[in-house]
Amino acid sequence: MTTLYHQPLDTASRCVRLTLSEYGISTHLEVEKLWERRRAFLLLNPAASVPVLKTDDDLVLVGAGPISAYLSESREDRGAPLMPVDLAARAEVRRLMDWALVLMEHDVTGVLTHEKALKRSIPADHGGGAPDTAAMRISRDNLTWHLDYLDHLLSTRDWLAGERISLADLAFAAAVSSLDYLGEIAWAERSACKLWYARVKSRPSFTPLLEERVSGVIPPAHYDDPDF
Amino acid sequence: MTTLYHQPLDTASRCVRLTLSEYGISTHLEVEKLWERRRAFLLLNPAASVPVLKTDDDLVLVGAGPISAYLSESREDRGAPLMPVDLAARAEVRRLMDWALVLMEHDVTGVLTHEKALKRSIPADHGGGAPDTAAMRISRDNLTWHLDYLDHLLSTRDWLAGERISLADLAFAAAVSSLDYLGEIAWAERSACKLWYARVKSRPSFTPLLEERVSGVIPPAHYDDPDF
Repeated sequence: MTTLYHQPLDTASRCVRLTLSEYGISTHLEVEKLWERRRAFLLLNPAASVPVLKTDDDLVLVGAGPISAYLSESREDRGAPLMPVDLAARAEVRRLMDWALVLMEHDVTGVLTHEKALKRSIPADHGGGAPDTAAMRISRDNLTWHLDYLDHLLSTRDWLAGERISLADLAFAAAVSSLDYLGEIAWAERSACKLWYARVKSRPSFTPLLEERVSGVIPPAHYDDPDF
Repeated sequence: MTTLYHQPLDTASRCVRLTLSEYGISTHLEVEKLWERRRAFLLLNPAASVPVLKTDDDLVLVGAGPISAYLSESREDRGAPLMPVDLAARAEVRRLMDWALVLMEHDVTGVLTHEKALKRSIPADHGGGAPDTAAMRISRDNLTWHLDYLDHLLSTRDWLAGERISLADLAFAAAVSSLDYLGEIAWAERSACKLWYARVKSRPSFTPLLEERVSGVIPPAHYDDPDF
């Protein structure tokens, strides 16, 4: 069976879980405590990062970009939903995936999930402890700009990279869902984002993420409500 | 004509320049001073990052991953050198590109090029000034581990992602070339890396990079010597 090594609030892990689910691939999930630097895991991925996907024919795939490219390319004969055929449209999907998975992760999501959630689980001698409130403040400032950009895109598009849902929507929805779990999104000010997120969140692929809880962190009441 | 907006020591920019050159696409180069936040450039890429490629039919492509994917996919009917056909091999190329362009960039190359070179060009009120020696020390420690990994890969492979040169080699060679420009690589201790880098560096696609000089920073004498 396909196994995904992941972290529950990690954007890239969530993006891959959504992609697997959209493609109808049932997957065994393993939470990887990266700070333990487990030897068997480092042999799979010396970069010591998640997500890592081990397919049922023992192929090891590392990172949300390579994993989703592999999954969509191996489905191209079946019409490959989530990745358009047109080369320029594919480039736009990839640009936005990089935005959510690298840029926004660096500026916002990676910092807030680390400070607010992960540091509770990590032992003090491995970098756990009290959150760095200065880092969190900067990330919250950055978040405003990223959500402004999302609003801007959605003012002219139904879905982030065009007329159909794509990997770009899953990558951004993954980031937004983690931030929403942490109560970081002021939805009242974000009507365009909210309509888009409600549509993504209503998809069956999203249900397992919304039902999951992270130890020690309670999400806001609207988190798992598709009609929030 | 195709135009590339770039920064001379930026890994992702160098990776795209090598790819364009390997594919025989002659390109007009524009150095983009990102800290000036030029309005016309922000309209091309609101993320305010390089590389950005504007094709001769006015398509705007952002980021080394999306640009190289576009270039290789639009050449697939011509045998698409630099990107293998096999799906697992493609995943390995992408994993290593992410390693050089995201992980190593974050841990090492981005920091050292910023501190040692870029800060000389940026005005003080935009973040320029004296280098942060503590950040540089950490990056140098990290570099050892990244080069160890490169040595490890090259102990079983002729090229980083397999038997033929690929985008993975160009991405790592881009990073290594910037670090070498800054005198950061102790080649005497790195025989496997050195043999591989000498082979990549001898390719005609590399010549323009090796001939270029960055204002205020002089590379070591061996930098532009393919038989160093």
